Amino acid sequence: MALIVHKYGGTSMGSTERIRNVAKRVAKWARAGHQMVVVPSAMSGETNRLLGLAKELAPPKSNDATNRELDMLAATGEQASSALLAIALQAEGMDSVSYAGWQVPILTNSAYTKARIESIDDQRIRADLAAGKVVIVTGFQGIDDKGHITTLGRGGSDTSAVAVAAAMKADECLIYTDVDGVYTTDPRVVPEARRLHTVSFEEMLEMASMGSKVLQIRSVEFAGKYKVPLRVLSSFTPWDIDLNEEAKSGTLITFEEDEKMEQAIVSISKDGKTDFSFTVNRNDYARAMDLLKDKVVPALGAQEVLGDTKICKVSIVGIGMRSHVGIASKMFRSLSEEGINIQMISTSEIKTSVVIDEKYMELAVRALHKAFDLDQPAA
Amino acid sequence: MALIVHKYGGTSMGSTERIRNVAKRVAKWARAGHQMVVVPSAMSGETNRLLGLAKELAPPKSNDATNRELDMLAATGEQASSALLAIALQAEGMDSVSYAGWQVPILTNSAYTKARIESIDDQRIRADLAAGKVVIVTGFQGIDDKGHITTLGRGGSDTSAVAVAAAMKADECLIYTDVDGVYTTDPRVVPEARRLHTVSFEEMLEMASMGSKVLQIRSVEFAGKYKVPLRVLSSFTPWDIDLNEEAKSGTLITFEEDEKMEQAIVSISKDGKTDFSFTVNRNDYARAMDLLKDKVVPALGAQEVLGDTKICKVSIVGIGMRSHVGIASKMFRSLSEEGINIQMISTSEIKTSVVIDEKYMELAVRALHKAFDLDQPAA
Repeated sequence: MALIVHKYGGTSMGSTERIRNVAKRVAKWARAGHQMVVVPSAMSGETNRLLGLAKELAPPKSNDATNRELDMLAATGEQASSALLAIALQAEGMDSVSYAGWQVPILTNSAYTKARIESIDDQRIRADLAAGKVVIVTGFQGIDDKGHITTLGRGGSDTSAVAVAAAMKADECLIYTDVDGVYTTDPRVVPEARRLHTVSFEEMLEMASMGSKVLQIRSVEFAGKYKVPLRVLSSFTPWDIDLNEEAKSGTLITFEEDEKMEQAIVSISKDGKTDFSFTVNRNDYARAMDLLKDKVVPALGAQEVLGDTKICKVSIVGIGMRSHVGIASKMFRSLSEEGINIQMISTSEIKTSVVIDEKYMELAVRALHKAFDLDQPAA
Repeated sequence: MALIVHKYGGTSMGSTERIRNVAKRVAKWARAGHQMVVVPSAMSGETNRLLGLAKELAPPKSNDATNRELDMLAATGEQASSALLAIALQAEGMDSVSYAGWQVPILTNSAYTKARIESIDDQRIRADLAAGKVVIVTGFQGIDDKGHITTLGRGGSDTSAVAVAAAMKADECLIYTDVDGVYTTDPRVVPEARRLHTVSFEEMLEMASMGSKVLQIRSVEFAGKYKVPLRVLSSFTPWDIDLNEEAKSGTLITFEEDEKMEQAIVSISKDGKTDFSFTVNRNDYARAMDLLKDKVVPALGAQEVLGDTKICKVSIVGIGMRSHVGIASKMFRSLSEEGINIQMISTSEIKTSVVIDEKYMELAVRALHKAFDLDQPAA
């Protein structure tokens, strides 16, 4: 008998029919003898609907008081989906109870709309598990030390699930989502992309920081910090597939025992003139340019600011880059052979990123996927 | 400067445009120097939407565990509308904060879906009022002594508002709704029906118990118990009408100083045979007949059970019935003159009800409204 945490995303909770399927899947795990804690997101579209209403009413400038109310508002989405899941589980004959973040409680700081979890009291959950109940805990939300509701930001339910799993010392945290695992690259760009059976925590972290939407980056950080065994798998397999088969599906995020992250050192020369280049998310481009022109250029006495929106960043990520040489040069050679000009390069211990003309994005991804034999099953 | 509680029903909160109007109205009262506490219902349709989802998932037989989750679910409607109203008030330049029932806290018993308020802690609200904030308190809900969310049943937001007003010793509790007050009878049946400027607490109680939907009966009981000055008025007047005019509109529920309710005595003869007749709500008819046939008839050794669904109950209510004689006989004579047969009669100290064929309902109401000069302004 294991203690298992399931997390279901908004798409998996998107209708009463889907909630019923989640209930049947969870009931299957519980009937197999596992103690089950389930963390659901809001029904898909609900958070956007609520925040859309708020946007029509809100003052032009956001402030702490308004952010507090936005959290009060948005937290209702997960409270509703959690109660519905508990009801669906009861209809399956399972004893079940749902708790809002404040009822657990999941204590956070007071940074409304992007709060961080500080501690989780597991007493109430443990007592219910011991009494044979399936416990539902709302994702995405908590309570600060003054009794105000907080939310963790977009994708925060992943973090809730991992944090609950860490607090409970769960045997595994399963993130059920609308993809069936982590892939070698985006299968929509490269049809040969393969699902990875395992991926290291650090690789997952790099991928999440590069914009992969499979897991929220803070949930990966949390999993790394507390060594939570984490698996990403599909919620769209039939609920009644064999449990042992399901338990091995998707992608497992693994941890090395002796991981050592080296301290990154960033230095900018103070002498003479130099170019300083960096990339930002496309959505932040206009604001970044405004800030550079209004604040940074006068402060630094810079000559000019140049921007380019027609670029994209392509990265290769792999823990093997630590011990294998020639990875980066192989990357550069592959791109060169395709006639793709590299405009910028940045690296970390297990990642190399290049900035290229956005029109070459698909070409570059396909070339690299092939060059590194990612279409071939791992040896 | 007075301490005022406003309550807004679901229709008044039914869209962002209407919520903005509520915010403007509340801001007007706050700017006039009043301390404001506002109790909103969920946006119209929201509670039904949520409970509709639950109905698709729920086990066939309701139980305490499921009712707990229904309350967890339904309570989100008021939490969302309250947060939206706080945001709209902030956009109007008012400092505002919303609290869910559990945050106040509003303590109730554990009778899920029909809980009763036991106490309200007014400290948090008072501190915010003292700091110049408009305080929004979710209607309809509370928390029991084990930390579970409870709801007060349909129309419970009226009770929440009156209970908050009682706890705060508010100067007046204004119930804003989609009708502009209490009428002599249903204006859809009798076009000459007049709005009453005042109605006594006991009359209101009789009307609520007879099915008048203007106020939930428990809110009237609460107002009576704690002598909360209560006014029913329209939320569809323009928000910027003169405050003094608005403050005198609608219908004020008044309290006599020396009210004394006589103890009702119900006796059933044990000797010989007798008929025992009573009425139930049409929705409860089938269940009542089943219970009578399966349980009551065998237990009492009764000969037979007769039922009739083609009836209606028409009542006259008035505190003047205590001191004036001949009211009931005038009622019976009026109905007789219209050829309406009276099948049953029941009375209380300030009410006389008759059961008649349902096809005469409108005719009877119009005849009585005229017979008692209710279409004439009160002397």
